[in-house]
Amino acid sequence: MAGKKKSKKTRESHPTRPTKPISRLLRLPKGPVNLAKLDTAATPGYPGVGKADAPALTQALAPELSDLQERLYANGRSEPERAPRLLVVLQGMDTSGKGGVIRHAMGLVDPQGIQLTSFKVPTEEERKHHYLWRIRKALPNPGMIGIFDRSQYEDVLVVRVEQLVPVSEWNRRYDEINAFEREVADSGTTIIKCFLHVSFAEQKQRLADRLASPAKYWKYNPKDVDARAKWPAYQEAYTDALERCNTDHAPWFVIPADRKWYRNWAVAQLVREHLIGLNLSWPDATFDVAAEKTRVAKS
Amino acid sequence: MAGKKKSKKTRESHPTRPTKPISRLLRLPKGPVNLAKLDTAATPGYPGVGKADAPALTQALAPELSDLQERLYANGRSEPERAPRLLVVLQGMDTSGKGGVIRHAMGLVDPQGIQLTSFKVPTEEERKHHYLWRIRKALPNPGMIGIFDRSQYEDVLVVRVEQLVPVSEWNRRYDEINAFEREVADSGTTIIKCFLHVSFAEQKQRLADRLASPAKYWKYNPKDVDARAKWPAYQEAYTDALERCNTDHAPWFVIPADRKWYRNWAVAQLVREHLIGLNLSWPDATFDVAAEKTRVAKS
Repeated sequence: MAGKKKSKKTRESHPTRPTKPISRLLRLPKGPVNLAKLDTAATPGYPGVGKADAPALTQALAPELSDLQERLYANGRSEPERAPRLLVVLQGMDTSGKGGVIRHAMGLVDPQGIQLTSFKVPTEEERKHHYLWRIRKALPNPGMIGIFDRSQYEDVLVVRVEQLVPVSEWNRRYDEINAFEREVADSGTTIIKCFLHVSFAEQKQRLADRLASPAKYWKYNPKDVDARAKWPAYQEAYTDALERCNTDHAPWFVIPADRKWYRNWAVAQLVREHLIGLNLSWPDATFDVAAEKTRVAKS
Repeated sequence: MAGKKKSKKTRESHPTRPTKPISRLLRLPKGPVNLAKLDTAATPGYPGVGKADAPALTQALAPELSDLQERLYANGRSEPERAPRLLVVLQGMDTSGKGGVIRHAMGLVDPQGIQLTSFKVPTEEERKHHYLWRIRKALPNPGMIGIFDRSQYEDVLVVRVEQLVPVSEWNRRYDEINAFEREVADSGTTIIKCFLHVSFAEQKQRLADRLASPAKYWKYNPKDVDARAKWPAYQEAYTDALERCNTDHAPWFVIPADRKWYRNWAVAQLVREHLIGLNLSWPDATFDVAAEKTRVAKS
């Protein structure tokens, strides 16, 4: 036993692991938020040298993430009424890398265990319903990892900045979202909300990059420049969303996102740490193992 | 230019590439099918030594698959009315590895580009409709890779063996499926149908393996042994499905599946070759590039 414990300790301090838990380092503290003071180029907890070793460090997480996700999935299959779920909410300004995180971090996980939903401009049908209607429909099933590419927060971000509803309406949504997330958490879903925090200068560079290569034209949308012109208003709206919806049951994590390699690694780590926190064991057999062994042997 | 061509040739003959195109080697020839004569443990086209180098050979496909899939996706975003789609249909006896292929081969691709559907026992609502109703709903959107874990073929397999509908009914479905697949292909979807061909002995071993480890109990279903007892009837039903639905617009590929490592590598190769065959270029800009460069520079 002593030997076992020692080997575990050695693994914990392995250089592919964060220097401290990412879920502690990136957790947004409660209270007033000042986005300008949160460094978008920082790399807290990163155990490597820099960009060069990031792909290997991120890929090194794959086997453990894969094992953890399989346990989650197995529980969902065997005991759906009790199995936990995970929900990763991705928010951030244009070019902050929501797609990159899905490709490089969430792509480490078996696609069978993922329920990905991209929330676009609401369709005509969606607009007929409460703004949380389409969100509820996309919540992950037991044993699944849900990913929201944008989310309910668009309804206090773009809706607020573009003045799509009266102030009184978006203003009451923060409490509504908190109550909604409480309900989701109480039903067994661990919520990880990630704000991909990118700087004004970095966004400009990324938009320019998209125009510099025909392989990236498809990622460019002229409307992104219109939104960029409203940067201060968006930062203000994000500040409120982060400040007013930063609860224990659905905390915000601020991911410095100017360095793509750090951003991807950090989100993969966050997911890993939360899956470990679920303390998942393999589900019990729902059949008589000995009897089935005999049946198979005779078959 | 000569130099460029040469370097391409070098890459083509690289040892990570199949010795011959997998899509030719594994293509089921038209005409009568004799499943017993198709070797379930073969490894046609495999460029490595064996199991030991398979994970590396499969992983080596990731960058190119990722690039090809991104081109497909980009076309879907920029020109949805013209963009192609890919549909990978996975069929095979229990334990043949449909889940393993999705995890290890399709998992190499960005989850944003995948539309995965697992067809289970039809729900009450599904049973109220034509058996192709739920299949149609799951067809991939422009630029997407659809994966069917089981498919329309269950309606001439389990339905036939378990005598869920009269002979006359399932008997006319082969032509119906051919016509349906013709329609799907004509609307711009490349269809790859994979039969994961596993032996009776290997299935027994895999069922026993699932009972030997608590980490695999969740994969075990006592009903699989019942189906195993009807092995000959299932092989006969598969034979007919393969023989009667083996068309130019939706061909069958028989994947020897006794060796998991070969199976996963082979399906990844098949997908790679079909994506290359789509000859995808990056979509044109849908905006004035020079004008947008100025806008970004001023922003």
